[in-house]
Amino acid sequence: MEMLLGDAEVVAAARRLRPDEDVADALARVAWSVVAEPGDAVAGTLIGELGAADALGIAFGGSRQGTFALLDAAGSGSRALSEARKRWRPRADPRAVRDALRSAHDVGAALLIPGDPHWPHALDDLGVNAPTVLWVRGRAELLVAEPRASLVGARASSGYGEHVAAELAGDLAATGTVIVSGGAYGIDGAAHRAALGVSGATVAFLAGGVDRAYPAGHQSLIRQIAAEGAVVSEPPCGAAPTKWRFLARNRLIAALGHATVVIEAGWRSGSLNTAGHAAALGRPLGAVPGPVTSAASAGCHRLLREYDAQCVTSAQEVRELWGMGAGSSSSARPVDPDRIRLLDAMSTRARTSVDELARRSGLGPDRVRALLGLLELEGEVQRDDGGWRRIPAARGA
Amino acid sequence: MEMLLGDAEVVAAARRLRPDEDVADALARVAWSVVAEPGDAVAGTLIGELGAADALGIAFGGSRQGTFALLDAAGSGSRALSEARKRWRPRADPRAVRDALRSAHDVGAALLIPGDPHWPHALDDLGVNAPTVLWVRGRAELLVAEPRASLVGARASSGYGEHVAAELAGDLAATGTVIVSGGAYGIDGAAHRAALGVSGATVAFLAGGVDRAYPAGHQSLIRQIAAEGAVVSEPPCGAAPTKWRFLARNRLIAALGHATVVIEAGWRSGSLNTAGHAAALGRPLGAVPGPVTSAASAGCHRLLREYDAQCVTSAQEVRELWGMGAGSSSSARPVDPDRIRLLDAMSTRARTSVDELARRSGLGPDRVRALLGLLELEGEVQRDDGGWRRIPAARGA
Repeated sequence: MEMLLGDAEVVAAARRLRPDEDVADALARVAWSVVAEPGDAVAGTLIGELGAADALGIAFGGSRQGTFALLDAAGSGSRALSEARKRWRPRADPRAVRDALRSAHDVGAALLIPGDPHWPHALDDLGVNAPTVLWVRGRAELLVAEPRASLVGARASSGYGEHVAAELAGDLAATGTVIVSGGAYGIDGAAHRAALGVSGATVAFLAGGVDRAYPAGHQSLIRQIAAEGAVVSEPPCGAAPTKWRFLARNRLIAALGHATVVIEAGWRSGSLNTAGHAAALGRPLGAVPGPVTSAASAGCHRLLREYDAQCVTSAQEVRELWGMGAGSSSSARPVDPDRIRLLDAMSTRARTSVDELARRSGLGPDRVRALLGLLELEGEVQRDDGGWRRIPAARGA
Repeated sequence: MEMLLGDAEVVAAARRLRPDEDVADALARVAWSVVAEPGDAVAGTLIGELGAADALGIAFGGSRQGTFALLDAAGSGSRALSEARKRWRPRADPRAVRDALRSAHDVGAALLIPGDPHWPHALDDLGVNAPTVLWVRGRAELLVAEPRASLVGARASSGYGEHVAAELAGDLAATGTVIVSGGAYGIDGAAHRAALGVSGATVAFLAGGVDRAYPAGHQSLIRQIAAEGAVVSEPPCGAAPTKWRFLARNRLIAALGHATVVIEAGWRSGSLNTAGHAAALGRPLGAVPGPVTSAASAGCHRLLREYDAQCVTSAQEVRELWGMGAGSSSSARPVDPDRIRLLDAMSTRARTSVDELARRSGLGPDRVRALLGLLELEGEVQRDDGGWRRIPAARGA
C-alpha cells in the first residue's frame, strides 16, 4: 500500500481534488480503480469487507490471516486472490495513481466515492461488482436526481430508431427525467442530443476515462454533455475504452436507470447486454418495436419475445415502467399508478374496508372496488368478512 | 315448424342440396340460420338441448313444458325466450328457407352441419354461440385440414403490413398451413392472395351470404378463393353483411385458427375484436410489431402491451404459437370463459344488478363483482345507479 500511496505527490494531488475531505479512503479507492478492472469481484469483495485501504494492504502486503476464508466465503477462493494479485501487481505504480489524479484535476473531473452526497446508491445494487469510484465531469447531482431513464440502442441505427430515440428522450427530459446513455453513435447520441435540447439533464457513461472523448466523432457532443449534463467513467483518466470496459460500463447504465429501454438493436447488439444487466438487477426493461423487416429492430423483438420486456411506444409508457418494480415484468401488466396507490394503502395482515381504502389511497370508492376486482383476479389481494388484504408477494427479489 | 318446413318445395330444395342424407335436421338448421342471427345464444341453447327440429317446435309452437326451466338453467331466462321469439317470428317465412336452399344450389354452395365429416369441431368451442350451419363454396375439407392459422388485420393497411402479411401467409402456406381470414381489403386480402399463390389452401369467412362477394372490389379474389380454397358463411345466401354479422363472423375466424395473428391494426381496429375472441377461446394470439410511428401498428402494440399477445416476426414464430396451447402464452392472460358468460348476460341498454347478473350467468355474485371490476377497467362495461351495462363495441368491422 505504501508502495502505491506513500508518494507525497500523490497525496498532494488527492488533496487538490478533494480539499475538504479526509483523503485516505479516497486515495485507496483511486488506487483500486487504477489496478483493478471495472467489476473485479475479488477487489469488490475485499473492499466490501475490509474497506479500500485495508484491502489494498492485503492485496499488496502479506496474506493476512482470514483473507482466504473471506474470499472462500465469497465463492472466490484463495486461488482467486493469487490470480487477482497477478493481475493487479503490474499496474501497481504510484505514478499511475498520481497521473489519474492530476489528469482528473486538469480536465475538471470530480472524484465520487461511496458516502459522497452525489454517490448514486442505485449502483450499490451491483454488490461486489459495484464501482470503487466514479469520475464525473459536469453536474454530479444528476446521478441522484429522479427519475432516471436509461435509453440505449444500436450504433448502427436507422433513421426510424434515431427519430424515436429523440422523441422519447425529448419528451422524458421535458417532464423532468434524467436521460442516461452511453455516448455512442446512433441511438445513444440521438437520446443525449434530444435531452440537451430540452433540459440538459443527461448522463453519459464512458467506457474509458472521462478525459478521452470516445468515439472521436462525438468529441463535441461529449464536451456539451460535460458542460450541461454529466460525463461519468469508472476507470481513471487516461484509461482506454477497451471492449471489456464497454461491457462493464453497460452494467452502470442499467443500474443507474429506474428503467432501461432499448430503442433499436440488432440481433446481437451490445444493447442487449445492457438489457440483460437491467433484467438481472430487477430493473424494469422496455423495448421499442419496429418493422419486422428491419434488422435494426430484431434485438428489440427478441427482448419482447424472450425476455418479457415491456413493449414501449411512447414516453408515457416509459414512465409507466418504474411503477412496475422488480420482478413484475413477466406478468407485465399495466402499470396503473392507481394500482400502486391502492396496494400501498393495503396491509398484508389487517383487513381493510373499501371506504377506508378509498380514504387512504385518495381514490374514489368505485375506482377502489373496480381495482380490487382486478387485483383479486390476479391473486394480489384477497377478501373476506373483515375486508380486503394484500397477499404477500411470493416473488424473488 | 310446419309453417317453416312443411312446404314441399323446401324439402325438395333440401334434398337437392344433400341428396344422400336425411334432411330433417339439416332443414331445421337451415331454418334456424334464416330466423336467428349468428351467435344467438337463446337459439344455441335450445338447439343444443333439444336438437334443431324440436327447438324449432318450441320456438314457433306452444311453450312446451320445461323450456323455461331449460333457459333459466342456461342463464337466459323465460323473458329471453319471449324476446327471442319476437326477433325470430318476423323472419319465419318458408319462402326465405326455400330461397336460401335454392341460392346455395345455384352458386354451388355446400351445406355443412355438425356431424358432417368436414364440420370443423374447432367451432364447437363457441358453445351456445356456435354456428348452426355453414355454407361453403369450394373445398370444405380445408375447414378440418391442419394446421390452420388465422391472419387478420386492418383494411387501412400500409405497404409494410401488406408485405408482412404476404410474407407470413406465403411461408406458412408453403409449409402446409391453411390460411384463414376475412376476405377484406388490406391485410386479409394480402394474406389470401399469398396463400393462393402458393398452395390455394385458404379459407375466407364472409359476413354475408356466400353468394355475395363483399367487398365488391374483391369479387374476383373471392371467386378465386371459392375455386381454389373455400369461401364460408354462417348466414344463408342472400344475407347482407351487416355490422353485427361482421363482428359475429370474427368469432369464427378466431375459433377456426389454431392461432390468430394480427398483422396490422389501428387502435380500434375490428381485428382487435377477432383477437379478443381468440384470447377468450384460449387460442394463442400473436401480434406483429411495426413502427411506433405508424398508426396502423398501434393496435398490435396494444395487444402486446395489454393482452399479452406474443410478438411475432416470422412464419416460424407463428408456427411456434400452436406449440403454446391454451393459456401458456408468456404469462398468458387467461381467457376466461366466465367473462364471456358474464358479457352474454349483460345488456347494452338496460342496467342490471349484480345479483341479477349472477343469476343469469350462473356465476357467483363475488365472481361477478370481480369480473365486472376487470371489465370496467377494460372499458367493456359501465356502472351507474341502476346497475351495470355493457358498452357497445365501438370497433369498426
